[in-house]
Amino acid sequence: MLVVQKFGGSSVGSCARIQAVAQRVAQSKARFEDVVVVVSAMGDTTDDLLDLAHSFGNKINRREMDRLLSSGEQISSALLAIALESLGQKAYSLSGRDAGILTDVHFTRAQILEIDTARIQDLLAQNFIVVVAGFQGVSKSGEITTLGRGGSDLSAVALAGALRAQLCEIYTDVDGIYTTDPRIVSDARKIAQISYDEMLELASMGAKVLFNRSVELAKKYNIPLITRNSFNDNPGTLITSEEQIVEKPIVSGIALDKDQARVNIIDACDYPGIAGEIFGLLAEAKLNIDMIVQTIGKNGKTNINFTLPEEDLEICQRVLKNVRDIGSVECDRQVAKVSVVGVGMRSHSGIASAAFKALAKENINILMISTSEIKISVVVEVSLAELALQTLHKAFKLAL
Amino acid sequence: MLVVQKFGGSSVGSCARIQAVAQRVAQSKARFEDVVVVVSAMGDTTDDLLDLAHSFGNKINRREMDRLLSSGEQISSALLAIALESLGQKAYSLSGRDAGILTDVHFTRAQILEIDTARIQDLLAQNFIVVVAGFQGVSKSGEITTLGRGGSDLSAVALAGALRAQLCEIYTDVDGIYTTDPRIVSDARKIAQISYDEMLELASMGAKVLFNRSVELAKKYNIPLITRNSFNDNPGTLITSEEQIVEKPIVSGIALDKDQARVNIIDACDYPGIAGEIFGLLAEAKLNIDMIVQTIGKNGKTNINFTLPEEDLEICQRVLKNVRDIGSVECDRQVAKVSVVGVGMRSHSGIASAAFKALAKENINILMISTSEIKISVVVEVSLAELALQTLHKAFKLAL
Repeated sequence: MLVVQKFGGSSVGSCARIQAVAQRVAQSKARFEDVVVVVSAMGDTTDDLLDLAHSFGNKINRREMDRLLSSGEQISSALLAIALESLGQKAYSLSGRDAGILTDVHFTRAQILEIDTARIQDLLAQNFIVVVAGFQGVSKSGEITTLGRGGSDLSAVALAGALRAQLCEIYTDVDGIYTTDPRIVSDARKIAQISYDEMLELASMGAKVLFNRSVELAKKYNIPLITRNSFNDNPGTLITSEEQIVEKPIVSGIALDKDQARVNIIDACDYPGIAGEIFGLLAEAKLNIDMIVQTIGKNGKTNINFTLPEEDLEICQRVLKNVRDIGSVECDRQVAKVSVVGVGMRSHSGIASAAFKALAKENINILMISTSEIKISVVVEVSLAELALQTLHKAFKLAL
Repeated sequence: MLVVQKFGGSSVGSCARIQAVAQRVAQSKARFEDVVVVVSAMGDTTDDLLDLAHSFGNKINRREMDRLLSSGEQISSALLAIALESLGQKAYSLSGRDAGILTDVHFTRAQILEIDTARIQDLLAQNFIVVVAGFQGVSKSGEITTLGRGGSDLSAVALAGALRAQLCEIYTDVDGIYTTDPRIVSDARKIAQISYDEMLELASMGAKVLFNRSVELAKKYNIPLITRNSFNDNPGTLITSEEQIVEKPIVSGIALDKDQARVNIIDACDYPGIAGEIFGLLAEAKLNIDMIVQTIGKNGKTNINFTLPEEDLEICQRVLKNVRDIGSVECDRQVAKVSVVGVGMRSHSGIASAAFKALAKENINILMISTSEIKISVVVEVSLAELALQTLHKAFKLAL
C-alpha cells in the first residue's frame, strides 16, 4: 500500500519539528509499506526569500524568482532525508525535477503537465522512503518552475494520482476542516468526512486549509485526501467522493469570505451581448468574477451586479473604463460573502428559505444571493458578516 | 574579452552587498564585454546549513548533505541575477548542473571532471551576464555534488580555463596576498605580482586567501588570477606564470603554519624499505605527510621525523601502532612551521644560511629543516613561531 504524505511549513519549521515528522514518517513506513513524502519550505523560508528578492525592487525576473524560491524545499527535503537516515531509515530526497514533475513554463505559477514516476518507483522498489521537494517542477527546457500558492499540496496530490496511491495525507497545524472558522464561532465542529465538491465550495469561500487546485486534482484522480495535524494524533478530516461518504448531513459547513468587493453597473445600455462584452473583457484581464446578478432597469437600460476578490478591484475598474455605453459604475469594498454548503441540499428543499429567515430574524440585510446545487451564498455588509456566520452555524445545528 | 569574477561569502553577505557586487559586475560588463560571475553562498549560510544537518547527529548521508549545501549558492546566484536585472542588465543564473560542471560522485569533496560550456557560451552570445552557483557540480548520474572547501574558487578557475577567459578575478574581503600575515607582522606589504609556484608554497603554508587546488588549476590552464577586495577598488595581487612577472624578488613572502604536529620514530629497525612501509601505510590512510627527515641511529636502528597537520595526528598514531619493529613513537603538537618562499632563490645562494643566522641571533632553535628550489621551511617551537616570522620578514626586508 502506498501513501503520499505532505508536511506544510509549520510542520517542518525547525529541526525539532523535522525530527518529529521523521518519526511519524518512519511509523507510516512500517504501517503502509511504501511512503512518498512531500515537504514545504521550513516555516517562513519562502516569505523570507521573497523579502530578499523584493529588496531589489518589485519588477523581479520570474525565472530567477523560481530558482530562488525552490531552494526552500530543497533544504527541507534534504534535512528530512537526513533526519530519516538518523533514525535508521533508508531515505532519498528528490527535487521537483528529479521527481519527474514536468510543468509548463509559467514561472511562479506553473501548471503540472505530467509526472514521470519511473525514478520514484525505482526508489520505492529499493525500499527507500522518497522525500520530494514540494511546490516545484521543471519545464521541458529544463528550467526550475514553482507552482504558486498551495503548490506543495498540489505536488502531493499530483504525485498521489500519478503513483496511484491509496491515500494522500496533508499535514498542517490544524486538526482538519471545520464546520466554520473556529476563531469566529467557538463551538465549530471538526468534520470527519466531506465530499470533494463540498470541500471545493468551502475552500473557495475562505476555509483556507486546502487550495482548490489540490482538491480538484484529488477529485479527478479519485484519491482520498486526509487533512491532519502534524502536532497531534487526531484523525483529521477525510475528503473523498460523495459515494464513499456514509452519513450525508444536509449542511456540512458555513464559509465566510471577507476579501470581496461588489461592483454595480447601473443603467448600462441593454443591447444583446453587453454582459458577454463586459465579462469577456474581465476574463481577458484574468479576473475571477464570482457572483453575477443582472436585473432589468427602465428605458432599455440594465443593472449588472457582481463580486470579485477585493485585490482585483482596481484592475476591474480600469477594464470597465474601456466599455462603451456602460452607464455608471459603483464599487463597494465593505461587503462579505457567507455561504452554506452541503451535498444534502440536493435532496432537501427549504434550506435557502431557512437561511434567509434566520438572517432576517437578526436584521441582517442580504445584498446579493447566488445558489447552486450544493451551496447558497449571500453577500452582506462586512460589519454584519460574523454575526451572519454565527447565525447560520446555529440555525443549521452545526455546533459541537 | 572574457573575464570570470568570483565573489566570496562576505562579498555577497547581505542584499546591500549583493547590490554593490551587481554594480561592480555591471561596470565590468561595460569594460570586458563578456562576464561570467561565480558566487559563494551568502555570509555564513553554508555553516548555518551544516549546523542544521548536524542537529540530526554526526553520521550524515553525504548525498543529502550536498543537496542541502548546494542550496546556498542557488540562493545567492538567483539574488545576484535579480540585482543585475534591477540595474537594467541582462542576467541569467545557472546551477552547477546547468553550467555543465561535471564532477565525480565523491559527495562533499567532488572533483571536476570536465565542463560542457555550450550553455554558457550560448548565453554569452546573447549578451547575458551569466551568474554561476559556485561550489557545486553534477555527477554523470545527475546527482548534485559539492567541491569541498574553497570550492567556489575552483568553480571560477575551472570555468575560466574551460571558457579560455583572459582573466579570473577572485573577490574576497582582503586586498590580496601579503608578504606575511598582517595580523602578526603589522608592516607586512601587499604583493603586486607573484608566480603560481610561490603562491602554492605560501597557500599551503597557511596564507589562506586562495586554496591550492585553485592555484594549481590556474597554473595548468595558465589563467592569470587576481585576488581583490570587493569592498574597495584597490588593484589586488596578480598571480601568474613566472615568465609574466617582470620584477622577481628573491623572497616573496614568509608563511606560518601553526596547525602542525611532529612525529619522531626513534630506534626503528633499519631494514630496507621500512620508510616505504611506514609512509605507504600513512598514504593509504589519506594522511598528508609534509616534511620528512631520516637520520641513522646506532646498532642498525634509524630515527624518522616527519610533520603532518595536527588534526591528522590521532589517525597517524593509530596507523603507526600496526607497524612492526617501529621502536618508540613520540609526538609533539607544540610546533609550527615557518617558510621562506621566493622564485629568486633559484638564482641566489645563501638565502638558507641568512635565514638560519637571523633565527640564531634571536635564540630560536630550529627543530627540523626542509628546503626546495623556491622555499626554505623550518620547524620551531610554537611559542617562538611569531617571533621567527617577524625575524625572517625583517631579515629579508619585506616590510612596507
